[in-house]
Amino acid sequence: MTRPEMVNGFTSEHLSAQPQHIRELIDRRAKVLGPGYQLFYTNPVEVSRGSGVHLYDPAGNEYLDAYNNVVSLGHCHPAVVEAVTRQLSTLTTNTRYLQTDLLDFSERLLATFPAELDRVTYTCTGSEANDLALRIARAHTGNTGVIVTRNAYHGVTAEVAAFSPSLGPASPLGPHVRTISAPDPLRHHNVTDLLRIEIRAAIEDLQRHGFGVCALVVDSIFSSDGVQPFPTDLLSVLAAEVRAAGGVYLADEVQAGFGRTGAGWWGFGRHDVVPDLVTLGKPMGNGIPVAATVLRNEIGREFGQKVRYFNTFGGSNVPIAAASAVLRTIEREGLIDNAREIGAQLLSGFAEIVEAHSFLVEARGAGLFLGIEVTAPDSTEPDRALAQSLVDDLRENLVLVSASGPHGNVVKIRPPLVFSAADAALLLARFADAAARVRR
Amino acid sequence: MTRPEMVNGFTSEHLSAQPQHIRELIDRRAKVLGPGYQLFYTNPVEVSRGSGVHLYDPAGNEYLDAYNNVVSLGHCHPAVVEAVTRQLSTLTTNTRYLQTDLLDFSERLLATFPAELDRVTYTCTGSEANDLALRIARAHTGNTGVIVTRNAYHGVTAEVAAFSPSLGPASPLGPHVRTISAPDPLRHHNVTDLLRIEIRAAIEDLQRHGFGVCALVVDSIFSSDGVQPFPTDLLSVLAAEVRAAGGVYLADEVQAGFGRTGAGWWGFGRHDVVPDLVTLGKPMGNGIPVAATVLRNEIGREFGQKVRYFNTFGGSNVPIAAASAVLRTIEREGLIDNAREIGAQLLSGFAEIVEAHSFLVEARGAGLFLGIEVTAPDSTEPDRALAQSLVDDLRENLVLVSASGPHGNVVKIRPPLVFSAADAALLLARFADAAARVRR
Repeated sequence: MTRPEMVNGFTSEHLSAQPQHIRELIDRRAKVLGPGYQLFYTNPVEVSRGSGVHLYDPAGNEYLDAYNNVVSLGHCHPAVVEAVTRQLSTLTTNTRYLQTDLLDFSERLLATFPAELDRVTYTCTGSEANDLALRIARAHTGNTGVIVTRNAYHGVTAEVAAFSPSLGPASPLGPHVRTISAPDPLRHHNVTDLLRIEIRAAIEDLQRHGFGVCALVVDSIFSSDGVQPFPTDLLSVLAAEVRAAGGVYLADEVQAGFGRTGAGWWGFGRHDVVPDLVTLGKPMGNGIPVAATVLRNEIGREFGQKVRYFNTFGGSNVPIAAASAVLRTIEREGLIDNAREIGAQLLSGFAEIVEAHSFLVEARGAGLFLGIEVTAPDSTEPDRALAQSLVDDLRENLVLVSASGPHGNVVKIRPPLVFSAADAALLLARFADAAARVRR
Repeated sequence: MTRPEMVNGFTSEHLSAQPQHIRELIDRRAKVLGPGYQLFYTNPVEVSRGSGVHLYDPAGNEYLDAYNNVVSLGHCHPAVVEAVTRQLSTLTTNTRYLQTDLLDFSERLLATFPAELDRVTYTCTGSEANDLALRIARAHTGNTGVIVTRNAYHGVTAEVAAFSPSLGPASPLGPHVRTISAPDPLRHHNVTDLLRIEIRAAIEDLQRHGFGVCALVVDSIFSSDGVQPFPTDLLSVLAAEVRAAGGVYLADEVQAGFGRTGAGWWGFGRHDVVPDLVTLGKPMGNGIPVAATVLRNEIGREFGQKVRYFNTFGGSNVPIAAASAVLRTIEREGLIDNAREIGAQLLSGFAEIVEAHSFLVEARGAGLFLGIEVTAPDSTEPDRALAQSLVDDLRENLVLVSASGPHGNVVKIRPPLVFSAADAALLLARFADAAARVRR
């Protein structure tokens, strides 16, 4: 079994069509980079500079970046540059020394969560945060079974890859992992009822196999499942089922967190449920590696009594300085409100475009996380190739988006939170043009 | 089973002896930090500034830092500050876009390795690098068995914690993990012969249980095993045994790498053996999270054909800029030579101190990685409490070191590579004073 095709991944069949300079760079990559690396787009993009919502290639072409969610404050935000430079010039040690900055930031971060979520452990990546969360959940529950959605992605450590089905059939799930459907209101009625039935079956099966139920792990925006913001009564139902079986609910906020959904700091808030553990990552440092596991104190007790956890860089000074600047900037610049407002503008604009094309069946989203579903005309049959054509057309016209979902047919739009009304208008205009061009 | 005492860890029994300000900080930590955090020293150190080989507390006390190996170039080295600031102000994207900096650095990094080691994959932490290396090794060998030394430490993901016995008895090893003795020439004659016998037994046992042999994972300086630089004919023998059984040899250079041993870039070079995979971490970015797995191309082929590996921050611009500055600075400032020369000065100075005290039985080291073994007088019986007294006495006298080894009785000395002859003389003088004071 070979590696499945990555959504919006460059493949070697398009190598000969690239300009010589690009071919040379791709060749150099092949000669030094290890296994598994892959580029975006049918025609890969070379980048050399970023600023605000724009990326630039060496020729000076300006791309509107509607995809990179790490640089949530915009590329090269001065608040982060300043904070990191100052910290790097002052101190870079770790959490085994006493330092007030770590505590000041932790207190501010936890204040953005419901009161029950009152402890934080720092890691460097979302993968590490999910890996640690699972270790903690196992110690707490005494069980090992994990439930995720059918095309979930939670990270790349061995532990986490084993419950990340979107890595494809050649990356096997663990024997202790069960999948349930992701919500897909376009194709299923009564999504919450359907998933209640599915999760009950998964729980029963995990118990029957002797794994018991350790954790339900869910990304509240279901990013790799195709961006599914609705229904919002779902997660409280799933969490209740898992808790009744002795498991915990881990909210993976690596994608949906830090204000992206426009409805508050954390994506799970839209679902009116308080998780037992929450993992954070990508936008947390606007380009500096920093991530975290937030949890209820009592959930961590068993793990803490048995095991030491020390992450050399996790919670070290520079990552904390970057995260601190990000938190402050989201507040100061009102970026959660901006995500909601510009997100609404985008959603209504995309709805009009969808209306005009038989192969666009739905625009959906929460804040600045949007998905546009591409199908065969007047049907719900996914059309991956057409979605790729849209993504590629936009790329040729200097707008960066990507695609997602189990069938790769959902155009995924996830711009920096500083996207302006004018940026949104430009994105909509380019998307409308692209849709008109690729029409079948 | 509860958490084992950490070597040189602060414990709550000493809380009431701390000044009020320190008690308050410790209390704030307990109220926000998750499970498993622990401070160094009987009297924890608060730090607020670092420069060169020094750390400073808020009162302005200057500590000679002879322990922190992340800041290999010294605290707050201007070359790293400058490179990171420039990069943060320019671009912070990931490896799915084409960029020359990533390729330039990868080519330079690989040039420091034997020619067989010709590919690199970036992660953020040494734990992630070891986790990935194991996934790659499993795909290549088709086996799962792992062999490590008795008190090895390789990281904190679930996968890697399962072969990190130094995390203590409450953190169980995986069923697929076997341990062999670390070299300990003070207590064993014919170390290489002994370990050949042990690894053959481990291999046979792994095969008998159906795991087969996937990897031997060894830190060439045996840091958590008590700093064991000798014998240097050992690793080639162990690697040969494992390869004959179908496994690979993974050199964990997170501790020994980047010139620390003074004998070249990589610790395995002292053993005249070329590994199949090598993992890098801690000092790679002088305080910016960056790590990597270096490997022989053919070892990664099977994994690469089956699995995608994407680490959002791994290989992203800022970590690569930091790592690039570190590599260049080690070359420009001749830090490998410095590690060898100052290391030799320290080793001969410590040997004299050892000679003068019946409870100090051996000083050993390679470059700027040294261990001094503390025992009951005129014996080889480890004395952990006395080693802790030495470490604490030095801390009270503004010199930072720590302890290591399965019995916690080896004083571990690991200063930044920019340590000068004067710094070394000061460290030796303070150590001699401490030894005179704690004498039993």
